[in-house]
Amino acid sequence: MACRAPRLPRGGAMALLTDLYQLTMAYGHWRTGRHRLPAAAELFFRCGPFRGTFALAAGLAEALRCLRAFRFSAADVAYLRSVLPSTTEDAFFDYLATLDASEVTVSAVPEGSVIFARVPFLQVKGPLLVVQLLETTLLCLVNYASLVATNAARFRLLAGPDMKLMEIGLRRAQGPDGALSASKYSYIGGFDCTSNVLAGKLYGIPVRGTIAHSFIMSFTSLEEVQPRELLPQAGGEPVDLPSVAESWLRRVCELLQTPLENVNRGELAAFVAYAIAFPHDFQGLLDTYCVRRSGLPNFCAVALALHQLGYRAIGVRLDSGDLARQSKETRQVLQACGAHFQVPWFGTIPIAVSNDISEQSLEEFRREVRELLPGRRPHGFFVMFFCALGPQNPQQHYRLGEEWLESCSQRGTWGGWIMSQQCAQVANEAKGILACISPSVASRDRGG
Amino acid sequence: MACRAPRLPRGGAMALLTDLYQLTMAYGHWRTGRHRLPAAAELFFRCGPFRGTFALAAGLAEALRCLRAFRFSAADVAYLRSVLPSTTEDAFFDYLATLDASEVTVSAVPEGSVIFARVPFLQVKGPLLVVQLLETTLLCLVNYASLVATNAARFRLLAGPDMKLMEIGLRRAQGPDGALSASKYSYIGGFDCTSNVLAGKLYGIPVRGTIAHSFIMSFTSLEEVQPRELLPQAGGEPVDLPSVAESWLRRVCELLQTPLENVNRGELAAFVAYAIAFPHDFQGLLDTYCVRRSGLPNFCAVALALHQLGYRAIGVRLDSGDLARQSKETRQVLQACGAHFQVPWFGTIPIAVSNDISEQSLEEFRREVRELLPGRRPHGFFVMFFCALGPQNPQQHYRLGEEWLESCSQRGTWGGWIMSQQCAQVANEAKGILACISPSVASRDRGG
Repeated sequence: MACRAPRLPRGGAMALLTDLYQLTMAYGHWRTGRHRLPAAAELFFRCGPFRGTFALAAGLAEALRCLRAFRFSAADVAYLRSVLPSTTEDAFFDYLATLDASEVTVSAVPEGSVIFARVPFLQVKGPLLVVQLLETTLLCLVNYASLVATNAARFRLLAGPDMKLMEIGLRRAQGPDGALSASKYSYIGGFDCTSNVLAGKLYGIPVRGTIAHSFIMSFTSLEEVQPRELLPQAGGEPVDLPSVAESWLRRVCELLQTPLENVNRGELAAFVAYAIAFPHDFQGLLDTYCVRRSGLPNFCAVALALHQLGYRAIGVRLDSGDLARQSKETRQVLQACGAHFQVPWFGTIPIAVSNDISEQSLEEFRREVRELLPGRRPHGFFVMFFCALGPQNPQQHYRLGEEWLESCSQRGTWGGWIMSQQCAQVANEAKGILACISPSVASRDRGG
Repeated sequence: MACRAPRLPRGGAMALLTDLYQLTMAYGHWRTGRHRLPAAAELFFRCGPFRGTFALAAGLAEALRCLRAFRFSAADVAYLRSVLPSTTEDAFFDYLATLDASEVTVSAVPEGSVIFARVPFLQVKGPLLVVQLLETTLLCLVNYASLVATNAARFRLLAGPDMKLMEIGLRRAQGPDGALSASKYSYIGGFDCTSNVLAGKLYGIPVRGTIAHSFIMSFTSLEEVQPRELLPQAGGEPVDLPSVAESWLRRVCELLQTPLENVNRGELAAFVAYAIAFPHDFQGLLDTYCVRRSGLPNFCAVALALHQLGYRAIGVRLDSGDLARQSKETRQVLQACGAHFQVPWFGTIPIAVSNDISEQSLEEFRREVRELLPGRRPHGFFVMFFCALGPQNPQQHYRLGEEWLESCSQRGTWGGWIMSQQCAQVANEAKGILACISPSVASRDRGG
C-alpha cells in the first residue's frame, strides 16, 4: 500500500468499496431473475445528529461522481470470484463485468440543503441489483460529509456571523481522506478556513496558520535571532528589532507590574524571529510558558516594536487552559497597552482560541466574553476546531422503496413517491435555518 | 474532485497534507538560518486511549512510505507561493522545491507493538525544517491507525480468543480512506475479518457478509422464488426447496408453539431464495419482522430443509433490540430444534450480533451468555463492530527534542536519547499483553 491519496484514478475501483453482503444479495437477486426489476431507494436519517433538529445534506456531488464511474474492473471481478462461495455461477461474474450505473437516475436536494429526520433527501432509481450494490458506497460518501457540514453549521449558528471559525482537525482525522472531507464540508457548513494545505489547494478553501509551541521552544535567547534587522514599513534605515523589542518589554512589564525576569527569553526570541520573517502577519501564541507572566508581555513588546516600524500584529492565540478566562485577561491587557501607549487598534487585536472547542465550551466562551465586553460582537475572536467526530454519528439509512411500498410501510419507512412533495415542504422550512447560516453555504461547494 | 482513492499516485502531493503553520514556521527557521540544524522529534501520547493503560502502535509502515515519497511538486510550490505572505522570499520557495526526506532517519517500535503513555514510540531525526514539516502528516497517519488497532485489541481482550470479531464500519467512516484504515488496523489489532470488499482486495483481509433486511423485505411470497429447485449435496434428483421448507415450517411452529399465520411469508421466501443461491453459506438475519414469531421459525425451517438435502446453515444474525436476551432465546430454540429433530449440530449454529456493539455491551453480552451456558466458551458468537471512533481520540504528540533538551524538559517531555532504553523496557512489558491478543497481531501487517 502506497501513501494514500484523495483522488481515485479514472475508472477506478470504487465499486468494490462496499460491504460483501451487497454482492451476495446481488447474486441472490440475479439467481431469482429479479436483478433488473425497477427499484428505488432513498437516503434519510432517523434522528438529527448532535441531538439536533436538522442536518445539512452534503457529499451529494461526490455520490454522483461515484455513480458515473461505477463499474467493476477485470481485476475486481477476479477478486470477487475468489471470495464469493465457489457455487456462485460463472455467468454472474460475466454479468458483473458488464454493469454500470447508466440506467440509474438520482434526485436529491441541492448540496448544503437543510434536511430533517425521516425525510428522504436523495433518491436512487434503477435496476434492483445496481441500486442494491450502491447502498454502502453512497452512505459512506454522504454520511460523514453531512455530519461534518451539520456540525459546522451548528457551530456557525452558535458563534454568530462575526466570529471566524477555522477547521484544524488534520492530525486527529481518520487519515488523509477523512481530513480532507472534514476541511471541505466544514467550509460548506459555514466555517471560514482550514489549516489543511492540501484541502486549500484541492478545494480552494482559504488556509490559515502561523506558529506552534515547537517553534517557540526551539529558541532560548535573542542571540539566536538572525537576521536581526527589519525595514520600517514606510522605508528608511533598517532597525535592530531585538533591541527595540527588549526596550518595549521593559515598558510593558512596568505597566503590567510583572517581573522582567519571569519573561521567557526564548519565547521573546521566537516572537522577534517570526516578526522579522512575517512583519505583516505576526501572531503570538501565548501559552508556551505562562500567558500572564511571559506570553502576553512578550507579545505586546514585539507587537509594539512592530507598530513603531509601521506594522500591525494580526492577533494572538490561546491553546490551553481556561480559554474564556484567559481571553478576558488578554483583552484587558491589550486594551491597557493600547490606552497607555496610545495605540488605539491594540485593544481590538483578534484573539484566537483553540484546543478541544465543543459546542458547550463555545457557548460558555461567548457568554463569558459578552459579560466582559457588553454590547460588543465577538468579531475579534477566532475559534479553531478539531473535528474528530464519532458516536454522535447519525445512522443514515438507505431503504429500498417503491416496488415494496407495502412491506416497507410495515417498518414505518417511506415509499418513494411521497418524496417530491416532502422536498418542497422541507425546502421552505429550510430557508429559515439557512438564513441564519452566514455566509451562504449554498455557494460553497467549490470542490463540486 | 473525483471519487476518492486509497492510493496516492507515485511521487504525489502528500507533502502538502500538513497544517499551514508548519510552512510558516519552516520559513521562520529558514529565515534565521536554522533550517539545517540537526533535530529530533518523537511521537508519544499523553494518556492511553479509551481510558486504558496501553495502545498499539500502528500506521508506522505508511509513515515510512510517506517519508520516502516526501517532496513538493512544482504545482505545490506554486500553490504555497499563492498562500504564504507576499513578503516571503523567493529563495525559500526555490529551497522547498529541492527538499526531500533523504537526510531523515526514523527509529520506531515494530508495527503492532504495545506502547504506553508518555513513552516515545517513533523518533524522527534530520534537518530541523524537514522534521518540523513532517509533524502533522505523521500524526495524521499514525493517530487514527493506532487508535483503531488499540480499540480492536481491547475488543479482542474482552472477547477472548474464540469469539470472531468483524469490522463493518464502512458506512459510518470518514469516507473511503477512513473506512479502509479502520478495516486494516482492526485486523492488525486482532479482528478476524471485515465487510469492506475493497479492504479485502487491497490488504488480503478475509471478507464476510451474507444478507441484509432490504433483501428480505424485497420478497412477499414463496411464489417469487425462482428457480425453486436445489440438488442434494450428495447428488440425485433436484428437490423443490420452497415445498420442503414449508413442510418444515409447520413442524417447527408446532414444536415452538407459535402460530403459523404470524410467520412472515416474504421472509421465508427470502431465506429460501438465498439458500438456493448459496446452499453451503446460508445465514438467517432474524430481526426484519419478529425474531421469535417469524425470523427464528423461518430460519429453522429453511436450515432443516437444507439439512435434509445434506447442507449445513452457517449461522444466524441479530441486528437490533436486546442482543443478549435474543441470543439466549435463539440458542434455546436452536437447541430445542436440534434435540427434537435429531440434528445435533443445530444447537451449536453460530449466532452473530451486530448494531452498536461497545466494550460495555460486549462485556454484558458475554456475561449474560455465560450465565445461560455455563462452562461454554462463546465460540459460536460473532460480533460485528462499527468503528466510528471519536472523542476518546488520544491526542498524540510530536515533540522536537535533542537540540532543545533543556527547554523541552521545562514542559515535562522527553529528550531524544532516553528512548532506546525505554523501548527495551516497553517491549518487555508489552509481551504480557501481546500474549493475550490472539492471533498474534505482529504478523498482521499484510498491507505493510
